Amino acid sequence: MACIWDTHSLHFGLLFGILLSFSVTTNGLKLWPMPKSVNYGSKTLYWSTNMQLRTDGSNYADSSGILKEAFERVVNLIKADHIIEAKFANSSVLAGVNVVVHSSDDTLNFGIDESYTLNVPAKGSPLYAKIEASTIFGALHALETFSQLCYFNFTSKVVELHAAPWTIYDLPRFPYRGLLIDTSRHYLPVPVIKSVIDSMTYSKLNVLHWHIVDDQSFPIEIPSYPKLWYGAYSYTERYTINDAIDIVKYAERKGVNVLAEIDVPGHTLSWGVGYSSLWPSKSCREPLDVSNEFSFKVIDGILSDFSKVFKFKFVHLGGDEVNTSCWTTTPRIKEWLNNHHMNESDGYRYFVLRAQQIALSHGYDIINWEETFNNFGDKLSPRTVVHNWLGGGVAQKVVADGLRCIVSNQDKWYLDHLDATWEGFYTNEPLTNITNPAQQKLVLGGEVCMWGEHIDTSDIQQTIWPRAAAAAERLWTPFDKLAKDPKDVISRLAHFRCLLNQRGVQAAPLIGNGREAPSDPGSCYKQ
Amino acid sequence: MACIWDTHSLHFGLLFGILLSFSVTTNGLKLWPMPKSVNYGSKTLYWSTNMQLRTDGSNYADSSGILKEAFERVVNLIKADHIIEAKFANSSVLAGVNVVVHSSDDTLNFGIDESYTLNVPAKGSPLYAKIEASTIFGALHALETFSQLCYFNFTSKVVELHAAPWTIYDLPRFPYRGLLIDTSRHYLPVPVIKSVIDSMTYSKLNVLHWHIVDDQSFPIEIPSYPKLWYGAYSYTERYTINDAIDIVKYAERKGVNVLAEIDVPGHTLSWGVGYSSLWPSKSCREPLDVSNEFSFKVIDGILSDFSKVFKFKFVHLGGDEVNTSCWTTTPRIKEWLNNHHMNESDGYRYFVLRAQQIALSHGYDIINWEETFNNFGDKLSPRTVVHNWLGGGVAQKVVADGLRCIVSNQDKWYLDHLDATWEGFYTNEPLTNITNPAQQKLVLGGEVCMWGEHIDTSDIQQTIWPRAAAAAERLWTPFDKLAKDPKDVISRLAHFRCLLNQRGVQAAPLIGNGREAPSDPGSCYKQ
Repeated sequence: MACIWDTHSLHFGLLFGILLSFSVTTNGLKLWPMPKSVNYGSKTLYWSTNMQLRTDGSNYADSSGILKEAFERVVNLIKADHIIEAKFANSSVLAGVNVVVHSSDDTLNFGIDESYTLNVPAKGSPLYAKIEASTIFGALHALETFSQLCYFNFTSKVVELHAAPWTIYDLPRFPYRGLLIDTSRHYLPVPVIKSVIDSMTYSKLNVLHWHIVDDQSFPIEIPSYPKLWYGAYSYTERYTINDAIDIVKYAERKGVNVLAEIDVPGHTLSWGVGYSSLWPSKSCREPLDVSNEFSFKVIDGILSDFSKVFKFKFVHLGGDEVNTSCWTTTPRIKEWLNNHHMNESDGYRYFVLRAQQIALSHGYDIINWEETFNNFGDKLSPRTVVHNWLGGGVAQKVVADGLRCIVSNQDKWYLDHLDATWEGFYTNEPLTNITNPAQQKLVLGGEVCMWGEHIDTSDIQQTIWPRAAAAAERLWTPFDKLAKDPKDVISRLAHFRCLLNQRGVQAAPLIGNGREAPSDPGSCYKQ
Repeated sequence: MACIWDTHSLHFGLLFGILLSFSVTTNGLKLWPMPKSVNYGSKTLYWSTNMQLRTDGSNYADSSGILKEAFERVVNLIKADHIIEAKFANSSVLAGVNVVVHSSDDTLNFGIDESYTLNVPAKGSPLYAKIEASTIFGALHALETFSQLCYFNFTSKVVELHAAPWTIYDLPRFPYRGLLIDTSRHYLPVPVIKSVIDSMTYSKLNVLHWHIVDDQSFPIEIPSYPKLWYGAYSYTERYTINDAIDIVKYAERKGVNVLAEIDVPGHTLSWGVGYSSLWPSKSCREPLDVSNEFSFKVIDGILSDFSKVFKFKFVHLGGDEVNTSCWTTTPRIKEWLNNHHMNESDGYRYFVLRAQQIALSHGYDIINWEETFNNFGDKLSPRTVVHNWLGGGVAQKVVADGLRCIVSNQDKWYLDHLDATWEGFYTNEPLTNITNPAQQKLVLGGEVCMWGEHIDTSDIQQTIWPRAAAAAERLWTPFDKLAKDPKDVISRLAHFRCLLNQRGVQAAPLIGNGREAPSDPGSCYKQ
């Protein structure tokens, strides 16, 4: 009843299968992203049927239940819905994990210590893995790493941990490891956003950049200006302010900060659906009217509301792709510009800098797309982070000028570019041509961008993964441990892709461009 | 920072958005699939913040918790992760649902009564919706229908039920409403299979046809012949027998039966990885060796094991696409055929009929692909169901011969045919040219087939949905309530597609072929 049939390739596929059988779990070093330092042995441990979380010696009280929830989540991920049998009687039983966290504080500040050590001894009675971390968020990363050491044994039906003893010390190379989602071009339901957050933690990404609004729709409730979300696509394609709070809390409990963006003054067509005076005119509807104080009052209202929801150090103010022609073709605005001795470029600068001041007044540091730097970099607030996207070579200019930078050059790290391969994601180096250590520190990290023109619930995860994971290793792993040739990591990344699949994440095959369907029948590990 | 930009189409999209705003929930008749009988009014009810499940007058004790679990599931689906506020003081408060089930038995037999009535009064204190059903499985369908009456109100932040009072009476047109998945061409992890089962219930499909093994891999553990799953793709791409039990129980609790298939004697190349004597020879490796008693012993062992796991009335024995050339090119088998006065066709018939006898001995009725009927229909067991796939017009021949039939003609109901549109899925009529009521009853229903050559975890759900839902209405809704022109249901199906997305199911846009990415930014309801 199958429609396409090629016996030759199928036989070949089967041979692959035979060769692969029973070999996948024997190589212990399938961790993704690769930790800073890893040592391991050769002994197999067997999970207790009742894995225990202990916190002996920890200063972290876990009053919010972050650790307990994470431990249960990890245990379930490792079991992968298999039924565990309890028929072994073996001395090498792993009784659980002891998690020692030094800090009692679980505020997810930017640049927080995310390091951890993970020790799994080969002997002991009772035998516990030990995690030690400065903060709970380092401990969460350690639990993810621990989960990648454990395998369900299909013969004995118990969970095993191979290659003990393990000694792992790990910390991220960059403090900002982001993924952008875009809920204006297509609305993403709350459960979908949460599933994206879940999947981010598997490769230790830690910032969800939420490009909330754009020309096409304004899906979020702004209590200060309650007509703004009249610009939503429909009645249901919206987020209440409580939805946003829920998403932020959900993410923070998993070590992920949420960066909110309002992109001004361009990319704002949908704003005027509720407040048409934000448009230059009915026929010319963006950028926001630079001559109208109401434009800045609305931005102030939004950022005031945001400051109660989005607790991240930064807010993103966009500032890219601003076509100011509506300002000069609208007589009222042209006159205002003339009166203020401004041309279009001056108006653009004026708008961006005023928006920056508003953000600063609400306690935020600012992220702006790179056109702001390219046009008037010397005027930007020193609390600006420049977000690169147009191409390579920008970060070195930004940090030479003493500003901070996030790298997202579109040729390599735009996930909507389906011809951008995982190899390109892997090899894109944020510190290219930046050798001065002080300047290197100004590169906060990078971000892969999942723009939503052709992305909705149906295809977002398969377009993000596994390519975002390739970038995640670049952002996490020490430079000297990164592969020079991506071929050297293909087997390990394929293994991670299969792990994502086992966890229900719709990660696409590695072979081919982004989001390609498997070309033939075959094992996940070979596609 | 976006790469593709077309202002004209975006403005147009925005206008669509404005027109749509606040109108979607005002039309109550967005149910999918359409029930047999629906009456409704115009009053809005408001959910209590603590919706109650009552079972006053029910005979069903729910000792296994099926109903309680389903009620909680439905309440969570309706909330769709939104935070509900409790600030209303209104007389029209819906306090909960009272579920009356007449039968105390929750065995999911084939052909069980799946009918239900759902009444939502407009008045009452306390005000309860009332579900009445012969079996718990009818009540589950009623809860799904109930869920589609309720909406989160983004202004008041409460859940509303519009257009009360409701009186719905409903039952399925066909008892067999199936979806095939294929875990041989690509392995599907257990959580993925469970998510497929969840999504099936939203459009009231009730049979998961699990095409477990095929040429490419043999992923399932068979305790009687423990080397069979050596034919798996890899160590991890396998199901333990307990995994299978878990999947069957999971499905049954949601009203879905699991139909297991072993496809014999063709499509069996992977069987010989563990037991090479099942191959005609090392160089010619299928069909199973008709001359070797071991072939039938293994089938007997598999079906013996299956009978403890797969409790559905039917087992699927395949029988399609059998190329018997290996039998005549292998001297030993050719000699055996000669000695038994058989040619290749006789051998094929002999094999299929003997496998049927084995299945019957384990208490199963048999489903076979249509080639068995086309070649020797008069020899098949009367307990055979013929599974159509090659094209139209088969069912009428099968039922004219007094056998039962399931319709899956590939031109319309093969989901891997990406050029098969939802309109074709919707309009494919299983009873075409069958007018005799007794013969009509022999058509048990139909099944949409998600063959796995180009399908894995990354793309299975977006390839299944929304097209499978179009077929689901064909299989559920009375013929006279089905749209003659699929254009008449496009808005309702788009609404259902968006509902699937809200529930986290990766249903693709309606526009275009199967599994197409959205072509432009826009509302889910318009794509």
